[in-house]
Amino acid sequence: MPVQVRAPRGLAGVIVAETRIAKSDSDGALVYRGYPIRELAENAGFEETAYLILNGTLPNRSQLSEFSSTLAAEGGVPYAVYEIMRRLGKDVRPIDALRTACSALGSVDRRSTVAAVQASLEAKMSVLAANCRRVPAGEKPRGPREGLGFAANLLYMLTGKVHEGYDLWVFERVLMFYMEHDLNASSFTVRVVASTLADPYAAATAGLAALKGPLHGGANEGAMRMLLEVGEPEKARRYLDKAFSDGRKVIGFGHRVYKKFDPRAVLCKEYLREMLRRRGPDDRLFRLCESIEKEMWERKGIPANLDYYAAPIFYLLGIEIPLYTPIFAAARVFGWMAHYNEQVAENKLIRPDAEYLGAVDLRYVPIANR
Amino acid sequence: MPVQVRAPRGLAGVIVAETRIAKSDSDGALVYRGYPIRELAENAGFEETAYLILNGTLPNRSQLSEFSSTLAAEGGVPYAVYEIMRRLGKDVRPIDALRTACSALGSVDRRSTVAAVQASLEAKMSVLAANCRRVPAGEKPRGPREGLGFAANLLYMLTGKVHEGYDLWVFERVLMFYMEHDLNASSFTVRVVASTLADPYAAATAGLAALKGPLHGGANEGAMRMLLEVGEPEKARRYLDKAFSDGRKVIGFGHRVYKKFDPRAVLCKEYLREMLRRRGPDDRLFRLCESIEKEMWERKGIPANLDYYAAPIFYLLGIEIPLYTPIFAAARVFGWMAHYNEQVAENKLIRPDAEYLGAVDLRYVPIANR
Repeated sequence: MPVQVRAPRGLAGVIVAETRIAKSDSDGALVYRGYPIRELAENAGFEETAYLILNGTLPNRSQLSEFSSTLAAEGGVPYAVYEIMRRLGKDVRPIDALRTACSALGSVDRRSTVAAVQASLEAKMSVLAANCRRVPAGEKPRGPREGLGFAANLLYMLTGKVHEGYDLWVFERVLMFYMEHDLNASSFTVRVVASTLADPYAAATAGLAALKGPLHGGANEGAMRMLLEVGEPEKARRYLDKAFSDGRKVIGFGHRVYKKFDPRAVLCKEYLREMLRRRGPDDRLFRLCESIEKEMWERKGIPANLDYYAAPIFYLLGIEIPLYTPIFAAARVFGWMAHYNEQVAENKLIRPDAEYLGAVDLRYVPIANR
Repeated sequence: MPVQVRAPRGLAGVIVAETRIAKSDSDGALVYRGYPIRELAENAGFEETAYLILNGTLPNRSQLSEFSSTLAAEGGVPYAVYEIMRRLGKDVRPIDALRTACSALGSVDRRSTVAAVQASLEAKMSVLAANCRRVPAGEKPRGPREGLGFAANLLYMLTGKVHEGYDLWVFERVLMFYMEHDLNASSFTVRVVASTLADPYAAATAGLAALKGPLHGGANEGAMRMLLEVGEPEKARRYLDKAFSDGRKVIGFGHRVYKKFDPRAVLCKEYLREMLRRRGPDDRLFRLCESIEKEMWERKGIPANLDYYAAPIFYLLGIEIPLYTPIFAAARVFGWMAHYNEQVAENKLIRPDAEYLGAVDLRYVPIANR
């Protein structure tokens, strides 16, 4: 019998891999390839950060230019994939349509190297994410526009408007925050699938399957629905009283890693306040967010997470709520591919054990005697 | 900082869950819900075993009848899903088409309870598996035929022929062996996705993504291709000499759990010998299999696994090689759903840690200085 060890439930605190991609700490520190998240948010753009996550170093000018051009050039989604999305019909949930489209794309993409496949997948995920509600609803796909960067293009495809200035700057930061977060459930799923040596599309499809779950990807949408339901800062306390007494989870709060604060939420909160300030005197949305956050911290000691403060930013940008999780995917796919590559580079099939608690050596009983 | 423990690579020997579904032991014992696999192979049928895996006890007559009727009644795949498969085109790999179809089905299936969703998924997976080469190739789907059991129907849909007698009995056993195998990579993937509380279709789609990998699902196809390549029992030694000197993995051998023998392979080997005996005096295929097996054991101490002996059985039954892994999925989906239910019943999000080996506190360097 080989040596067995018992892991805590949910693999909490269990180191299952070595990584050089990112590190999130319980005290609220987050680095991407060594760079603190605030350092990147203040200085770098999306493509630069994606290059960093994938390659380990910040790009020089020609590397960045090549990387950005490839992302822009690979955005063309085959007609058959749009047809498949359309076939799903207008009632489909966007995240289901996105997962199906990603799987379909993987079935027809014939690029021959892993690097080419990944570049294609990364570029197209954002186009599919922006179109995973429109196209099943029978609308025409809205493809990328020439001359826009990754964030500007995604926001354009999502909303039909070209955004600039502070709004675009903030959206780009939120995408950067969603890009990578070490072994979150979807990235771990990607690594498990990568460990079978399945291709990047199969792994990303599995990542999207994990994002479907309300404990992982659905949270930004759930948080926005809650904010709209509460409606007014003054109603926060009563809403939470009810949620606590019903034993309901309050969406957008708590994180397996961060116990004091989520550094991404802290930054998004700053951005949200400034976005509203630039829009005029009405700061109710900010006060609403803050009032629930304050109550949750004072009464439960649970901090707000990225999803909680990303949601009202997406809302202000005019993005439909069911697209929040697809946006998460459009950014996280870069992290997924970094994990895919790290897993495959020193692969061992991820195949844990279970402790069997049932009977052994039962004898079959003929059906007449049951 | 919470307590951290370091797991061996690939989570080998790490107990990540308690289970009452099945137990595989390094000494070659395998039980499903307490019943040794040979006991079930000799006495039970596929539906009975699937009921057992899902519910924990053997069914009585009325339970079995209801379970079998539901499986038969739920086999109707929506037209839109076949259309989606067709759109993938004739060059698609069947396992990619199956994953895409499963994801699509999950996007349009509107059953309201988890139990109803799972029954639908289990019934339709087999129909999709049988059609995941035909339909993309432009052929008409071949649906289930009334009056046939699960195994007979799947074999009919795969081959266009109604099989009976020993051939069907063997095929049913092979499906039973593929049904469940505790925390194999795809079932673990399913549990990770289930732990986000994603729906059963999302979880099964991720399971199919893991099956795409040659270290997990592709092995029965690879084993058959190898057997055809070697061709003659006398060529086994030379083939292996070359494989060893090239450092190539020999497909169909070795298993994370079984170090002496895989009990399912032992049974399949008996069945293969008997199938050939009933066909006539030509036992070259059996001798070919045995010669490679013997060399692998004597020279490397690695035993044959289920995939190795399932492959020539599928071959004798006239099933096209690229459908071997889809067949695996059609059977394994019952185990996946048992794991899904067990995970969700006492859920905790599966979210491990990684050890970060990279730098921290790097300062951003302007692009002009890189």
